[in-house]
Amino acid sequence: MNLLAATPASVRQTPTVLIRGTGLLGASIGLGLRADGHKVLLSDPSPTAQAIAADIGAGTLLERTSAQTTPEIVIVAAPPEATAGEVAAALVRFPEAVVLDIASTKAEILNHLLLLAQDEDAALTRADLTRYVGTHPMAGREKSGPVAARGELFTSMPWVICPATDPSSGDQLSAPAAVEWAEEIGRRLGATVHRMDPVRHDESVALISHLPQIAASLVASRLQDAPVSALALAGNGLRDVTRIAASDPGLWVQILSSNARPVVEILYGLREDMERLIGTLEDPRAAGGQADIAQLIAEGNSGVTRVPGKHGAPPQSFAVLTVIVDDKPGQIAAVLNDVASIGVNVEDLRMEHSAGHQVGMVELSVLPGRRDELAEAMTELGWKVVLS
Amino acid sequence: MNLLAATPASVRQTPTVLIRGTGLLGASIGLGLRADGHKVLLSDPSPTAQAIAADIGAGTLLERTSAQTTPEIVIVAAPPEATAGEVAAALVRFPEAVVLDIASTKAEILNHLLLLAQDEDAALTRADLTRYVGTHPMAGREKSGPVAARGELFTSMPWVICPATDPSSGDQLSAPAAVEWAEEIGRRLGATVHRMDPVRHDESVALISHLPQIAASLVASRLQDAPVSALALAGNGLRDVTRIAASDPGLWVQILSSNARPVVEILYGLREDMERLIGTLEDPRAAGGQADIAQLIAEGNSGVTRVPGKHGAPPQSFAVLTVIVDDKPGQIAAVLNDVASIGVNVEDLRMEHSAGHQVGMVELSVLPGRRDELAEAMTELGWKVVLS
Repeated sequence: MNLLAATPASVRQTPTVLIRGTGLLGASIGLGLRADGHKVLLSDPSPTAQAIAADIGAGTLLERTSAQTTPEIVIVAAPPEATAGEVAAALVRFPEAVVLDIASTKAEILNHLLLLAQDEDAALTRADLTRYVGTHPMAGREKSGPVAARGELFTSMPWVICPATDPSSGDQLSAPAAVEWAEEIGRRLGATVHRMDPVRHDESVALISHLPQIAASLVASRLQDAPVSALALAGNGLRDVTRIAASDPGLWVQILSSNARPVVEILYGLREDMERLIGTLEDPRAAGGQADIAQLIAEGNSGVTRVPGKHGAPPQSFAVLTVIVDDKPGQIAAVLNDVASIGVNVEDLRMEHSAGHQVGMVELSVLPGRRDELAEAMTELGWKVVLS
Repeated sequence: MNLLAATPASVRQTPTVLIRGTGLLGASIGLGLRADGHKVLLSDPSPTAQAIAADIGAGTLLERTSAQTTPEIVIVAAPPEATAGEVAAALVRFPEAVVLDIASTKAEILNHLLLLAQDEDAALTRADLTRYVGTHPMAGREKSGPVAARGELFTSMPWVICPATDPSSGDQLSAPAAVEWAEEIGRRLGATVHRMDPVRHDESVALISHLPQIAASLVASRLQDAPVSALALAGNGLRDVTRIAASDPGLWVQILSSNARPVVEILYGLREDMERLIGTLEDPRAAGGQADIAQLIAEGNSGVTRVPGKHGAPPQSFAVLTVIVDDKPGQIAAVLNDVASIGVNVEDLRMEHSAGHQVGMVELSVLPGRRDELAEAMTELGWKVVLS
């Protein structure tokens, strides 16, 4: 079946999917699509990686499949720097298939494909690009390899679909049916689908993903030689800011290199703010210095209120109340049971860590209108409740 | 009773405490000490603030107390820039009292006091400083004012005790008994007491508190004009890095101004790393560029492993497993009940936020040796468990 003539909206169809690259994401896609009824073929330059992916049930090895079985969709889940080459090869080898990739940046891959399609000696033609759609599932990457794969990896996560677009004319190159299939794959894996231009996508992830990664790494890097006595004072602020500094250097070299321009543009702005702050702190009592500091913090205030909350809902200030519990199994559950029995929904929950004591704090975020009622009812039930 | 001759170790004593400054922290100290049996006097330049603090039970107004009632301990809980003046005034007015302050930075206040003690015209003498001990309770500051006060605010939080030290000779000025009383106050309020030199304290908080605050504000500030479509892709990474950007500008002007030198020294290092990264990203395919990026991320890796975990325990990698739940009251409690029934302790818990779907993910951190057993048992109980 040629998917360009068979949009997902028509009837429920389960095209055969080839996954090229069976690391964490490729194998997870395989598991998820098989669970959804698709026939999944697997291929990876590493015989071990593809064998493990097949063993855990992510699909059947392409090399063991009869030549008659051709994929209708190819998903390239290769490392970012290998992606454009793999997409081109798939478009040429499977001349009727829709080909998707899932790399973290999109414009550089598209530019690479457009160059290849211009090259008279290359087998790839510009017409082939109607079957290509770039995508970016924004799912966990802390672990790698097919062993860590799970079909539920994409549940509720954003999956950005970037139809190929001619950068000079702005014309969309991807066929509408190919884009619909890309979105359908994301939805079938439980993700929340967003459609975005490749350049806009890269600018967006530079800001909301690459910038925080750089900031976390820069801050964590300063801790390398910190005295243990200083680190012992660390609170949730430091833990929150540095958490993602634990990321994989190899992957981030590829991500930042392939999105260098949008990232560096943001860093210019950051550098300007930091230079101003350094100037102020070098002479903090000079005229205007205190106003400069106040402005930086105030600008951070306005920026952070724009970060959406849970479920992409508009940013909302929840009211927080803290329950003090003993640090033993079952205590948090007991808290939440009582909260549920009072009938209040917990919008967010954090454990407050602290040094030395075997006492924990459970921070509950609830709708502001419900907080006082909840605090009162929990106190009546014997909990130590802190409202600040 | 003169506390310099009556260390807390001797017998259980509950000295009369005057709290000067009845904002969130001052009023919380009052509530906590009263609950511990102390007589607490309150005083604040704002008649409203001190009246509210008295109304919520943090203590008795000093101005309504008979002249015979003199405090044996004075705790100055004024804004940072007013602290040194208030400490000096208290040392002079109550010539037998131990005087503590609780401002977020310590060296500048001590230097200010030493200057005042040198001034022949000032009433303060160097001998008075034997009764002064600087302290810094590292407790929540998101809300301000006595209304938000709670006696449990300091439970399990670090409280740094900084005996006054002559910066040139290094000799300790605070009397040992005064330092013991400062530590005792922290312990009686449930905090974990750390002892540290004022200069070392300021360097420590510059790194573990002021640097993350600046990084969070700088990143959040970049979001002010971000398109809504970009913000819709935000994940926990951005949320974690920017959370503390919601802090109070007025307070942070005072904190950063009073700790300008240690902070700016750290920012010089950060700027150097950032300049190198900008240079690399301006020409990411140049020789050595990719190695530079990898090095930044790797240095972040080594820094973040040094951040202590829960209860100040040595950094430990917990194994994470994620349970997918419906977003309705009681689901998280049900998860944790089952975890408790399996007998595994949850070391950390986070809710995974995601855009669009009414499905939540509960991320449980457990000792690595218990994870697989827990995952298996939870799956048997019917939960959707993701191990990656």
